[in-house]
Order: sequence, then structure tokens, then C-alpha cells
Amino acid sequence: MTAPRPREAVDLADVERAAAALLAPEVRDFVAGGSGMERTLAANRAALDATHVVPRVLTGIDSTDTSASLVGTAARLPVAVAPMAYQCLLHPEGELAAARAAAARGVPFTVSTLSSRTVEELAETGAALWFQLYWLRDRGLVEELLDRAEDAGCQALVITVDVPVMGRRARDVRNGFALPSSVRAAHLDTGPTSHAHVGRAGSSAVADHTALAFDPTLGWRDLEWLRGRCRLPLVVKGVLDPRDAARCADLGASAVVVSNHGGRQFDGAPPTAVALPRVVEAVGDAVEVLVDSGIRGGSDVVRVLALGARGALLGRPVLWGLAADGQRGVTRVLDLLRLELEQALLLAGCADLADAGRLATYVRSDPS
Amino acid sequence: MTAPRPREAVDLADVERAAAALLAPEVRDFVAGGSGMERTLAANRAALDATHVVPRVLTGIDSTDTSASLVGTAARLPVAVAPMAYQCLLHPEGELAAARAAAARGVPFTVSTLSSRTVEELAETGAALWFQLYWLRDRGLVEELLDRAEDAGCQALVITVDVPVMGRRARDVRNGFALPSSVRAAHLDTGPTSHAHVGRAGSSAVADHTALAFDPTLGWRDLEWLRGRCRLPLVVKGVLDPRDAARCADLGASAVVVSNHGGRQFDGAPPTAVALPRVVEAVGDAVEVLVDSGIRGGSDVVRVLALGARGALLGRPVLWGLAADGQRGVTRVLDLLRLELEQALLLAGCADLADAGRLATYVRSDPS
Amino acid sequence: MTAPRPREAVDLADVERAAAALLAPEVRDFVAGGSGMERTLAANRAALDATHVVPRVLTGIDSTDTSASLVGTAARLPVAVAPMAYQCLLHPEGELAAARAAAARGVPFTVSTLSSRTVEELAETGAALWFQLYWLRDRGLVEELLDRAEDAGCQALVITVDVPVMGRRARDVRNGFALPSSVRAAHLDTGPTSHAHVGRAGSSAVADHTALAFDPTLGWRDLEWLRGRCRLPLVVKGVLDPRDAARCADLGASAVVVSNHGGRQFDGAPPTAVALPRVVEAVGDAVEVLVDSGIRGGSDVVRVLALGARGALLGRPVLWGLAADGQRGVTRVLDLLRLELEQALLLAGCADLADAGRLATYVRSDPS
Amino acid sequence: MTAPRPREAVDLADVERAAAALLAPEVRDFVAGGSGMERTLAANRAALDATHVVPRVLTGIDSTDTSASLVGTAARLPVAVAPMAYQCLLHPEGELAAARAAAARGVPFTVSTLSSRTVEELAETGAALWFQLYWLRDRGLVEELLDRAEDAGCQALVITVDVPVMGRRARDVRNGFALPSSVRAAHLDTGPTSHAHVGRAGSSAVADHTALAFDPTLGWRDLEWLRGRCRLPLVVKGVLDPRDAARCADLGASAVVVSNHGGRQFDGAPPTAVALPRVVEAVGDAVEVLVDSGIRGGSDVVRVLALGARGALLGRPVLWGLAADGQRGVTRVLDLLRLELEQALLLAGCADLADAGRLATYVRSDPS
Repeated sequence: MTAPRPREAVDLADVERAAAALLAPEVRDFVAGGSGMERTLAANRAALDATHVVPRVLTGIDSTDTSASLVGTAARLPVAVAPMAYQCLLHPEGELAAARAAAARGVPFTVSTLSSRTVEELAETGAALWFQLYWLRDRGLVEELLDRAEDAGCQALVITVDVPVMGRRARDVRNGFALPSSVRAAHLDTGPTSHAHVGRAGSSAVADHTALAFDPTLGWRDLEWLRGRCRLPLVVKGVLDPRDAARCADLGASAVVVSNHGGRQFDGAPPTAVALPRVVEAVGDAVEVLVDSGIRGGSDVVRVLALGARGALLGRPVLWGLAADGQRGVTRVLDLLRLELEQALLLAGCADLADAGRLATYVRSDPS
Repeated sequence: MTAPRPREAVDLADVERAAAALLAPEVRDFVAGGSGMERTLAANRAALDATHVVPRVLTGIDSTDTSASLVGTAARLPVAVAPMAYQCLLHPEGELAAARAAAARGVPFTVSTLSSRTVEELAETGAALWFQLYWLRDRGLVEELLDRAEDAGCQALVITVDVPVMGRRARDVRNGFALPSSVRAAHLDTGPTSHAHVGRAGSSAVADHTALAFDPTLGWRDLEWLRGRCRLPLVVKGVLDPRDAARCADLGASAVVVSNHGGRQFDGAPPTAVALPRVVEAVGDAVEVLVDSGIRGGSDVVRVLALGARGALLGRPVLWGLAADGQRGVTRVLDLLRLELEQALLLAGCADLADAGRLATYVRSDPS
Repeated sequence: MTAPRPREAVDLADVERAAAALLAPEVRDFVAGGSGMERTLAANRAALDATHVVPRVLTGIDSTDTSASLVGTAARLPVAVAPMAYQCLLHPEGELAAARAAAARGVPFTVSTLSSRTVEELAETGAALWFQLYWLRDRGLVEELLDRAEDAGCQALVITVDVPVMGRRARDVRNGFALPSSVRAAHLDTGPTSHAHVGRAGSSAVADHTALAFDPTLGWRDLEWLRGRCRLPLVVKGVLDPRDAARCADLGASAVVVSNHGGRQFDGAPPTAVALPRVVEAVGDAVEVLVDSGIRGGSDVVRVLALGARGALLGRPVLWGLAADGQRGVTRVLDLLRLELEQALLLAGCADLADAGRLATYVRSDPS
Repeated sequence: MTAPRPREAVDLADVERAAAALLAPEVRDFVAGGSGMERTLAANRAALDATHVVPRVLTGIDSTDTSASLVGTAARLPVAVAPMAYQCLLHPEGELAAARAAAARGVPFTVSTLSSRTVEELAETGAALWFQLYWLRDRGLVEELLDRAEDAGCQALVITVDVPVMGRRARDVRNGFALPSSVRAAHLDTGPTSHAHVGRAGSSAVADHTALAFDPTLGWRDLEWLRGRCRLPLVVKGVLDPRDAARCADLGASAVVVSNHGGRQFDGAPPTAVALPRVVEAVGDAVEVLVDSGIRGGSDVVRVLALGARGALLGRPVLWGLAADGQRGVTRVLDLLRLELEQALLLAGCADLADAGRLATYVRSDPS
């Protein structure tokens, strides 16, 4: 199949093909790759496919309300754009284009600590912003970023807890992947000669830079400090064990994101569709439970809603759209997702997202 | 393998190959395709294959009685032809040829609301007819169709409840599929210039037309109204949740059809072989339980009987027969199905269909 | 991989390749094929592969006794040659060569009703013979065969109960398979012009002949009659439902063979490795439980012993050996099986077959 | 993918490719092959892939301590080099090179009875040595080897109990595999003309030699004798049944190795990831439980720790490293394993190996 033009994409897989045709192989690998033997990456998709949702009929609805409130942020879909680093790799406008698309489609956009555009620039897009924080060794910089995020009007703080160090992604290591000089971590005090730009055979420069910049010691006490320091709702991203999720709730987090970082961190972690219902059972209504890793269409969103999630973060498909056609590409991705989600909800007899949460699921006993 | 001539087809897969060799690609896709990523489509087949039926021996029978009563209609097989739209796409005679074959073989034929031949024409074939109703926005037309169905001698009314909107079938959207002017919805007030005929890139004209014509608000109260308005036994097609099936029984339906519309509506729905026994358990004898989606031979019929179904609807194989050789092709399909079913029952030690319902099943724990 | 010479075959798969290289395609299909979509055929193998047997260690044995008593017949392996028709199709000497190999290796040989050599000829090989009976319409012929079997010194009567009619084997039907005039059913009053020799497109002549000759009405009362009429131990072959096995025990059968006829009769039947432990549990020690369908090596024999079988019938591999190299080929097959079985038992710490019956099994929950 | 140079290997699979490019086909087969149909070989890997480990977050650690005590031997990783015969087949320096790498990386090296270098030579490498004992017919030689092992400073005695005879490895039999005259069993009284060197078509000379040299009668009483005769901690390798593991504990063994000999002995044995937790449950803390068969990276080590193992033996990957680049190749293998293990532990929130033992596992119900 030849790659379709992005505007003609019929589903997200079409957008992926369009992006793949345009990207340099090492960038494609940087986006697509997982850690280790990429088994968790594969398991994410298999576990979603194994989750069957039982639709209801004769509910008498003729439209469905996909609007959501995600940690207090109004969203037209139960979806936010996941935090993803260095989007200028995919398109010259980088995060600006993606955030504009998110703004146009009413979807929160999460600004990565490693964004190649600043949160202030992104605030001008009018998108509902969340700010994602990596726990940096430079605690002064952490405080500065918290202030900048609040000042820029971000509506939630997403602390990523599954990257004490960056997962070893064999593709990047093989490629000796490094950032081109044109792409930089706009929030960090790093110019085009940072470690992330220094390619070495047998090493991922992005991982090298991360190891220098990130503080792996992030712990529960830091989370408490953060909870006190930051006025925004706190979202803890990268939780898989129900006990950890419950403790996040106890410490006042507003949400957890059940995530294995798209199969990019611990290769061996369970697929999120398997971990999700166990987390939901553990936390009840004490926190919102979001999920990511493997969402590739509207049916997947219904699957995770039926498994108890309040919403999902969308990652790689946004990058595909960005690579394929900039803002228009991301818009196409969000439009396709809305189209599929609305239809899936209608076909499942759901007037709104709460209805989706009450659908029964038949999960194969071999979920991954 | 080259496509065999239909009369020489040894099994339904042969007929499929014969049809595929003759059909235009976009029509083949229209018949074969499912919605979304076609995962429910694939799961239907996998779940049937995973259902093992334990045959009985030494029962002393030398023939088997395949005759059935399906919602009061006498049938020589526990099978009815499923409602399928626009059969003139497959063969100039369209539904006429298929209904004649059904008449010759003693199998009920379900006339689709979107039939390209009228119920009155089809009544002349002598087939036992069921009329399938889509819930149209034009309620006057609904009433007219009910009257026409009763007047034409239809013996059951099949209300389809899983198409509030048409499932998004990527193949048709990619193909910009539209009906040729020669094929029309004979029951609707639509000429060759209806929306179903207006091809547009990135859109299925059949879906566009459906969206205009169908009323998605069909609800329980409408079902009650229908139950009172129509004297025919009421069959509710497209039920997967046991609670919905039980409610159909409470409202006086004669049967439910456990169906995911052949994988063409909600992609993510469970395969019918998984949903079927749960529905059977929920409704007991309160309604007849029929099933469709994936039936491709006599063994499959025995499988669903053993899982508790009273009978099955046969869909795509009828279209393959029609495309391959008109009435003779459909006759061949029904003859093969009878041959296989009779043999399967004999080999399973069943003198009749009730015996088949008492066979044990060993279902793989990974049914889809 | 090129086909090895049979004497150099390292495992039974090598023998299969050697045979395949020599046989006409339609004969290869006649041997290899299953009924219907060949799903039970495939499931047999998958279910054996899914059965893990937990070996014991430090048992202090340095040899293992593979000798068995199968329905009173002494055997050097817990294996008998399964009844298989028309072996002259594979080699000019047909059953004579196979029986000679069985005699040389101390394995009972089951003479098929449809043998192309007579039981009297085969008795001269010195093999321990069992006689397999199909329930023929000509009851006088049945009585004659019983007398001939007893007179020839057969040590057991195997009544096949899963062939009221022959399963529809698509390969044979496609091939219009018929016996060459040189191969005949030596026990039946049929010359080279019987129905089994008359090829017709779209039909298996062997099945046509069977339909004429076999009486499908074989029932429990016939089994009782047979039990009284025949002095030999009675083996009921083709039982899958535990209730049927229990009833065989009640009626005085000495053994049942858990079999789906190698996937050649009811396509949809469970794999025998799944059915076997349920039958064993139902009958306890009331009858011996044998098994066939899919045995391809010594590990498989240990698998079924651990699942509770007393022994296995070996089918297609014997035909491969026969086709590949006549008596020597079959001898090679039995030698390989003995070699593999002895080793498997030693490696599992079993001094004899009873020890194997006490090994634990870990069966995948997805056994087919 | 072309084989990378070993020093550039990114993961163990790279090292395997590098080795495969250098080795003669029959040596590659000798290393890679399993017994029988190689189903246990495949199941080992599938069962590990099916074992998902649930990482913990926010534990506040910035480093992880991979140091272990394995049967009293201090190790920098919870890993020992498995006993493997005839390593001079892979590289002229053979075990010397591998032991030097093990010494350099702080990993115990197990000297095989069939080592092509003597335990005294290997002691000079400074590696922590364990001595692996096959139960030889020549009991005087057994006593001599025990003395030599103790005198050379070995820290544990590993008695292999799953090789009463060598498993039948079809690849070696097909290849008529024999040792070249340059490779000998340095501990045995065998020169270059021993049976292991005499190639014959249809036979593995290594297996022939084994059959002559090994005493299959090794039993519980021998284990008791050994326990009394040898002052070193006793490790019983090749245990799969929990009852056998418990009996080893009762007899004073220090550890058991849950092993199916890398799929090379009883084909049909369960994968070790399935057997392991059952053994752990049976023995509690009475013995250390080690495991091998299929470990291919740091995630696998975390998997088996989470399933209750105290450590793992690493087999084929060491041979790959040896073949690819001698001592440097093995060093690269151990460095990669350490790198992956440290990262996996950090990403799973484990400060040490005990933490890993407390991680939850979600195991697919279809583990092999």
C-alpha cells in the first residue's frame, strides 16, 4: 500500500504510513521504538485487541457527548496529547503545530519538560496546557519550570515517575541517535551543543543527556513536596502497581496515568490494558485513572473507558500527524479519533462517557 | 489455487474464491469488509474455531432430521438467509435469485429494508420470507413497509438494532464506494440519484445514504410500539449483552439474533460464539436465540447449536454464491451447507437439532 | 530440506518427507487429509504440544521397561498399529509389510475391515493381530469376519464407532479420488470394479463405497450383541464423550480408544489430548483407555500416558514408513518410536509405563 | 541484518548473530539445538515473554545493588555461568577465556565435567569456580574429580540430575556431529580418539561418548553419599517437579536449579518459567532456587527473580560471546547483561535483588 496523503487518511494507520514515508529512518526509529526486545511494546497492542466490549442496544440515543473533564480540564474528547519530547524533530514548527491542532479540537496538550518549544510560546496557541515535569537534578530549574508552567496558565502538572533513567532503546543505540543542532530542549539551559546533540556509535545521545539531567531519586517525599509546592492538579504518570496508585491517591494526586511509557521504559512491564482494571479496582474514585500506551483509534478509547479509565493520553499518532502534515496532520489525527470515538460510542449505545464506563468487557484469558 | 467453477465447489471457501474472481474489487471489499481495524471480523472466526463439540457415538441413527422451526417458520435447515442489502450488486437478478434458491431449499429468506428487489417481487418466489426493518426517519415509510411485509406474506419481522449509524468500513471509505445507478433500494423512495449513488473520495456513499435515512434513536419504547403494531413474530437482531436479550424477551420478542453484524458495526464487540452462551443462559426458553457472524459451514452450525442457539443466519456465503452463479450458486451454497450439516450431525450422533443442543462443548479459554 | 533416505530418518518427520517424495499427490492427500476445514486435524497436534509433562529425577533407574499389556495383548511398546484401510496404496506388499514390521518389533497390528490383505495372510506374519470391524450392512459378512478374525488368531476386536458415514474429506473430493484397480478391500466381496474404484469428479469413490457398505445405525444394542457374539476382548474406537466411555465400560468393553479418527471424521471434535483426561476421570479402572490422533514421537506417547492413557495407536507414521521403504520403512518408524520413548521415559525418571502414568502435567489453558 | 562486530553488540541477540557468522554450521547447531522437536526449547522463551513484571515507582533510589550471594559465593550479578561442555569448540582458549571474563566481571563460572580445560587451569583465572559433576560410571574418577574440585578451590558442587542419558538432539544426529581432535574432555581419561571424536552418519558422537561414560542410575542414595563426601555446598541441577525439589532440600542440598537443560533433554518438559514458581512454593526458604533455560537479557533475570528465583545460570549467550570474540566477547555479554539488569531494576524501582523478589507478576494464562 502506498502512503496516502495525510488529509486522505482513513485511519491512524494511514497517517503512520504517511509519516513513515517522509521521516529519516533514525527519526522513525526514535518515534516507533521500544526498549529492550520491544515485548511490552507488542503486548500493549495485543492486550487491547484481546479486550472485547459488549455494546448495548435500543438505548434511544442519536448522538453522544464525548466531552470530558480530565483533572478539571474541560476536553471535547476523553483524550489529551501525551507529553512527548523534541517535536521539532518531526516538523519545523514542532509542538506549536501540535498544540494549535489540540487547541482547535479542544484537547489538552501536555508540554514536555523536553519540549523543543517553550511553554510560553505554546500558551499563545490557546490550547489547554498541562505541563509535564521530569525530576531534574537542578532543583532550581524544577522550581523555575513549575513557576513558568503556572504563569503560562497550565491547568495540570504531570509528573513522570517511570523514567528514573531512560529505557535502553536498542534502535537508538544502534543508530547512534543524536538530536540535530536545530532541535533543542527549549526549557533547559542547553544549547545546540548539549549532550543530546553529540552522536556516538553505540549510544543514544538523548539517553546520555537524560542521564545527566534527570535525578533518578524521585521518591514519595518529593511527590509530597511537589504536591505542596504546585497549585495545579497533580497527575502521576507511569503507575502500574495498584499499591503505588493507591499511595498517589493518599498523597493528594488528582490522577494517575497507567502507563508503561509506550513500551519504552521497563521491557517486561505488563500491557496497560491488563494493569488498568487492577489499578481502577484499587483506587476506586479516590483519583482519576488515565491510561496510555497503544491507543490507536476510537475503539481503543472505548475499551479503556470500559475497563475503568476516565480518559487516555494519545502519543505516537500525534507525532505521525505532525510529521505527515504539521498542524493539519495532527488535526486530521484528532478528527479521525473523534469520528471513530463518536461512532464507537453510538454503536455501543452510549450517550456519554459514563455510559461507556458501564459497558461489560469480555477479556481473553490470554491478554498480552 | 485457481477459482473452481461454482458447481464444482467442494466447500464454501471454494464459492468465495469463485466469487472473488468475478467481482470488481470494490464490490468484493464491500462484501468482505468489516469496520475499523476488522478485529471483531477476525475474532468471529477464531472463536468458532476455538469451540470444540464433543460428538456422541453408538446412538443408532442412520439419518438426521435437520428440519427446524425458527420463530414459527418451518425450515429444512436451522438456517435462514440473513438480511443483506443491495444484492443486485452481485448479480443482475439480485435478491430474486437468492430467494428462489432459498425457496427451492426450504430456507427462510430475509428481505432487507435495503433490498434491491421489492418484497412483493420476492414473495412470488415462494420463499418463506422474513422482513428486515431498519428504523427509518420517515416513520410513515416504516408503517408502509410493515404493511407491505405483512401483505406480502412475510412470516417474521426482523428489526435490526445494531445500526443506529453504519459502521465505518475503511475499505469502502478508501474506495469511495458508491452504488452503480443500476442498483437501488427498491423499498425506499430513492431513484438512481440517491445519496447512495454519489461517490466521493474518502467517503462511503452507502454510509452517507444510511445516515440520512436511518433514525438512530430507536429505543425500547419503539420496540414496544413495533411489538404492538406488527402481527408478525418479532426478531431483534444485533443483541450481544445478556441484559438486552432478557429485556427483549420481557417485551414480547420471539427471538433475538446474537450478532455483531458480521464484524461490520462496532469493531471491538465480542465474537458471537463468545457472547452466545451468555445470552442463552440469561434468557433460557423465554425467546429463541439465533446467531450469525462467521458461519462458514455445517460444523459451525453444529457449534452454535451446541452453544445453545436455535439456528443461524447465513450471510456472506449467500452473496458469494449469488456472485458466482446466481440462483444456482446460492443453491450450491445451501446444498453444501446441508450436506455438511447432515454429516456433522450424523458424525456427532444427533438424530435431530435438539440432540445437537445437548452436545458438550470444550471451549478454549482463549476464544478469540 | 531434501527428503532423507528412510533408513537415515532421524525422526518421524523425516519419514514423512521421504514418503511424500515418493507418493502420487492424490495418495499423499488421502493419507494426510482431514475432514472439513481440517481444524480438528490441526488441533490434535496443538493440544499435544501444549501438554507439558514434569519429569522426575534421581530415581536411580538405568533402563526402562516399555512393555505393555494392551487389552491382554503383550506388546513391547504401549503402542499398536492403528487400523488403516487399503495399505497397498502405499506399497505393493501393503499390510503384509507393515504387519511383518509390527511382528518384528513386538507391536500389535490392527487389521482393518478395509484391509487390502486378508487377515489370514496377515496371520502368517506372526504379528499379534487385532481385528477392526466396521459395522457393515451385510450382517452375514460381519459374522463371517468375526469368525475369520477369531480363527486367524486375532487377540482383540476393535469396533469403530465414529464412522457411521465417512467424514467428508475435501482433498479427496477435489481430487475425485478412487482406488486403483490393483488395490481392493480383500475382506469384502468386492472386485476391482467396486464403487471404491470408480472415480468421479467432485466425489471420493472411497466414501461412496463406504456409504453403500457401512450401516450407520450401529447402536448400543449392537454393541451388546457384539459383546456376546465375539469371544475376543472388545475395544471401542472413536469415543470422545466421557458418558459414552462409561457406558462402554458398563457393557463390558475391555477398552475404549479416545480418537477423532485423526481429524478425519467430525471436524469440530476436540483434540484427543483435551478429551483424554476427562474420559480417564470418568471411567477410572473400569476399562483401559487408549488414544490416537496426532502421535508423532516418543514424547507424545509419554504425554498421553501422563494424561492417563494406557497406550496409543499409531496411524499415519506407519503409512509413511510403508510408503518410504515397505517393511523396512515401518520397522524404522517403530525403531525410532521405541528409541524416542525409551529415552523420554529415562529422561522423565520412569522405570516403566506405570511410572509415566504418575507424572504431573502442566497443560496450557489454551490447548488447541 | 548483518552481524555486528561483537564489541558493538547492543544486545545478546547481536552477539548471537556475530557468533553465527563465524561458526561452522554443525557447531552452531550443537550450541543452538534442542532435543526432539525442540518444543521445550521454544516454550522456554515463550513462557518468559508471557511473564510480565509490575514495576514500582517513586522508590527514591538512584542506584541498584546487583550483588548476590549464590550458595555462599559472592557474585556481582545474580547470575553464574552455566556448566557447558567442550568450550574449545567455540574458541581456541575455550573455558579459559570464558572464566577470565567471569572473573573480571565477578560472576561464578561453573566448570563442566566435560570441560575442555581442566579445573586447575581455570582456577588460575581467579574466577569463583563451581564444579559441575556428571555421575560417571567410573566412581573412582568421580571421587578424583571431587577432590580436584575441592583442591582447586571450587566453591560449590553442581550435580546434574537430568542427564541419565543425553537427550536426542536431531540436529547433531543429522550432522553426524563429532568433536574435532583438538577438543577433548580434559578431566576424563580420554584422548583425541575417544568415542566423542568418532563421527558416524546418523549418530551424535558426543552422545555416544556420554552413554559410555555416564551412569544413568544416579539416585537419591547417591545424592546422600555425595552430600556426605563433598564439603562444598551442593547444587542439584535439573529439577522441575516440586516434590523432587523438596526432597533435595530434605537431603541437605543448598540449592536446586530449575532447569530443562535449555530444552536439550526431555522434549515435552515444561518451560522453566512455568515450573519455577511451583518449585519456589514447595521449598520456601529451605534451599536456594536457581533457574536457567532461555535467559537472554536483564529483563529475563528480573522476571525469574520476581517469580522467586535467587539467581539464574547463563548458558548459550556465554558461548555466543566466546565464539564471537573470545574473552572479550564473553565480557561483552556479561557487561550487556549487567547494563540491562541494572536498568531493569532501576526502572522497576528495586534497590536490590530482594526488592525484585517482591515485585508482582501478571502471567498470561497461556505461558508457553
